[in-house]
Amino acid sequence: MHRIAIIGGTGPEGKGLATRFAIVGHKITIGSRDEKRGTDVASELSENLRNSFTHKLDISGTNNENAAKKSDIVIIAVPYEAHSETLSELAPYLSEKIIIDAVVPVKFERGPRPIHVEAGSATEEAAKLLNESSVIGAFHNLSAEKLLQPDLSLDSDVLITGNNSDAKNIVIDLANEIKGVRAIDAGPLRYSQFIENLTVLLIGINGRYKIESGLKISGID
Amino acid sequence: MHRIAIIGGTGPEGKGLATRFAIVGHKITIGSRDEKRGTDVASELSENLRNSFTHKLDISGTNNENAAKKSDIVIIAVPYEAHSETLSELAPYLSEKIIIDAVVPVKFERGPRPIHVEAGSATEEAAKLLNESSVIGAFHNLSAEKLLQPDLSLDSDVLITGNNSDAKNIVIDLANEIKGVRAIDAGPLRYSQFIENLTVLLIGINGRYKIESGLKISGID
Repeated sequence: MHRIAIIGGTGPEGKGLATRFAIVGHKITIGSRDEKRGTDVASELSENLRNSFTHKLDISGTNNENAAKKSDIVIIAVPYEAHSETLSELAPYLSEKIIIDAVVPVKFERGPRPIHVEAGSATEEAAKLLNESSVIGAFHNLSAEKLLQPDLSLDSDVLITGNNSDAKNIVIDLANEIKGVRAIDAGPLRYSQFIENLTVLLIGINGRYKIESGLKISGID
Repeated sequence: MHRIAIIGGTGPEGKGLATRFAIVGHKITIGSRDEKRGTDVASELSENLRNSFTHKLDISGTNNENAAKKSDIVIIAVPYEAHSETLSELAPYLSEKIIIDAVVPVKFERGPRPIHVEAGSATEEAAKLLNESSVIGAFHNLSAEKLLQPDLSLDSDVLITGNNSDAKNIVIDLANEIKGVRAIDAGPLRYSQFIENLTVLLIGINGRYKIESGLKISGID
């Protein structure tokens, strides 16, 4: 059982990941810039899941700082616009922890487009800002809509990047706990940009085909 | 039936595509910088396939210029290092034709890395050099090794980019003729970089998992 904080846990992706990790027994803390909003979303998720699950789910909410302090794995799910500021503020509470960056630098200007990131990717930016943490990239390509339906199989692979193999293996095990997810070691942090951009591509396909797409790697197994 | 030239058709990817399009009845011309090498590879492919297929396969070889002249669909499968020079030389013979760019700008320096392309991607570079052609990006992520085994299902999607929807639809139909391939409209040319970089990612996964990986989009159908 991990104590998992979800920073920016009040958005669809954060709520979806909170749902999936709560139902498999992890202790979840929803973080928000606004503490009240964090507690509200935690109550909402607990309420929604109460009818589907007989076992007690452990979901609480607070502000981002307290959420980070209380947890040993911290998932970053803020909009890219808040990425570097949020991480700079939280850095003192994130050292020695596993940080999972799930942020996609995307803007919408006649279709989805990547936002240029000086460090190459949001995940590499996180690694630069948090040099005392183990930063891993994961969960960029999962449909929030599907994550929020707790019984639904995601039917997607999660591509995981990182330079610290112990931390990466913990995140691989964690990702594999989500129904219908297979975690894939996608290499070092320098490949993170490709995975973040893949989300831009998938958002485009979602619009064109009117679906919630996922990604799978064939040829493994 | 299309008359298909494969420029740089003597490399593994070109030979693999030639194999797959020949066996479904297209007229294939293998192009090479060296005419003799073009004819040799055409003979080699015809010979290899003779035992597996009872119907007559139409595979010939020549130099790149003649191959381009004789065909209405031209697949570019040269190494990226030869990309802009080859296209500039062939431009007079490519106007009004459908050009399928399958080139991945990749180099190997302690693992696969993308080569920086000023135009954004090899496919967009082709579109700039060939402004009287319809340039489409496709076939970047297919395993050459699997393409060369004519009975094997690829179990992969082909992500197709282009700004001309008539040309794109022709390439979508063509890609769907390969066993185990599903063609996906991946959007305009500006998304080509993401698909080219995806190949860099897949090459990394191939090395890590000792496989020939492919890519699939889930959630469609």
